[in-house]
Amino acid sequence: MSELRVHNFSISLDGFATGAGQAPDAPFGHAGERLHEWMFATRFWHRMGGGSGGSTGADHALAALHGAGIGAEIMGAGKFGPPGWQDDPGYRGAWGADPPFHTPVFVLTHRPRPSIEMEGGTTFHFLDAPPAEALERAREAAGGLDVRLGGGPSVVRDFLAEGLVDHMHVVQVPMVLGRGVRLWDGLESLEEAFDIEAVSTPSGVTHLTFTARRR
Amino acid sequence: MSELRVHNFSISLDGFATGAGQAPDAPFGHAGERLHEWMFATRFWHRMGGGSGGSTGADHALAALHGAGIGAEIMGAGKFGPPGWQDDPGYRGAWGADPPFHTPVFVLTHRPRPSIEMEGGTTFHFLDAPPAEALERAREAAGGLDVRLGGGPSVVRDFLAEGLVDHMHVVQVPMVLGRGVRLWDGLESLEEAFDIEAVSTPSGVTHLTFTARRR
Repeated sequence: MSELRVHNFSISLDGFATGAGQAPDAPFGHAGERLHEWMFATRFWHRMGGGSGGSTGADHALAALHGAGIGAEIMGAGKFGPPGWQDDPGYRGAWGADPPFHTPVFVLTHRPRPSIEMEGGTTFHFLDAPPAEALERAREAAGGLDVRLGGGPSVVRDFLAEGLVDHMHVVQVPMVLGRGVRLWDGLESLEEAFDIEAVSTPSGVTHLTFTARRR
Repeated sequence: MSELRVHNFSISLDGFATGAGQAPDAPFGHAGERLHEWMFATRFWHRMGGGSGGSTGADHALAALHGAGIGAEIMGAGKFGPPGWQDDPGYRGAWGADPPFHTPVFVLTHRPRPSIEMEGGTTFHFLDAPPAEALERAREAAGGLDVRLGGGPSVVRDFLAEGLVDHMHVVQVPMVLGRGVRLWDGLESLEEAFDIEAVSTPSGVTHLTFTARRR
């Protein structure tokens, strides 16, 4: 069975996955990259950049689950580009010529456009569809593999609310952001649908893994 | 130096320390006692009730720090009694004839009343004062010992916002409450004032300990 998975989804103690004031040079707003420093220190991340080194403990192991067995990604419009990208018909995303996905990527937007084929196996498709329908499309494209739900927070929240997420890896960073977009809003009793494991690591973060109970 | 300490302060993943709908038979609202089950399982809690048994690991060890070296407590009106207790001039609190504090307790309320001496060393004093002034009063009463800040969440938040808390032990329980009173609101960048340690335990909770940096 093809699962829907969330990985390396980092939030503050107060539950914000994105800060306030998102802009082209600040995709996470005033949060900057502070929610992801734990990941930058891992071998997983070093390798993504073609380098070596980096930590090889639990932070690395959990982060490295990100790509294995993934055949497609679903992401929100805000992950594809900064506010207003829809007004630029030639825009090709904030991820460079060779985006780090290497699979079909379904971008949720109310203003779809023709698909864009990038280098390295990534093709962006644009979809104006509710969660279940978007997942169906992504599953077809994934060819039997799993689908990654790439965020941002409001997209993850929407799929959680509809009970579509099979596995979720949330990383809680010990900081209080105060402003931005929260993950948990509107998800009362979410724990009833998941087995939840918490593990703190020496870097100071706490990994929360959610495994959907048999439905 | 007499410190101000918060202990065993339990919150949901979404940061609520109290649910919605507080009432005499539901002091934590719709949260019930679900935020405190981790503590009920400890030897610390069993002993509080005069019994034996209970777990003796990290949950117990952290919970048991609650009383040591404490000479007074400060609590919000909502911890003393359910909404409306101020209208009953004979009300003596929700804690029974022999409350579990055994020290002077300063209850913050906009409608102060004469002090009440209870059995077992607890005396309730009623104070309409801002945080720094309340702390000064409690410190005088503590006779050189520390002061415990007993909650609820809005009281803890007020003292944190004024930089008055020296040590805080928060316990994050893997559930999403969705509604209630949040701890973290208005505390952006709180982490800059504290060294923070996170440790998850086999019961599934994560203990976050905040130690104030040298001021």
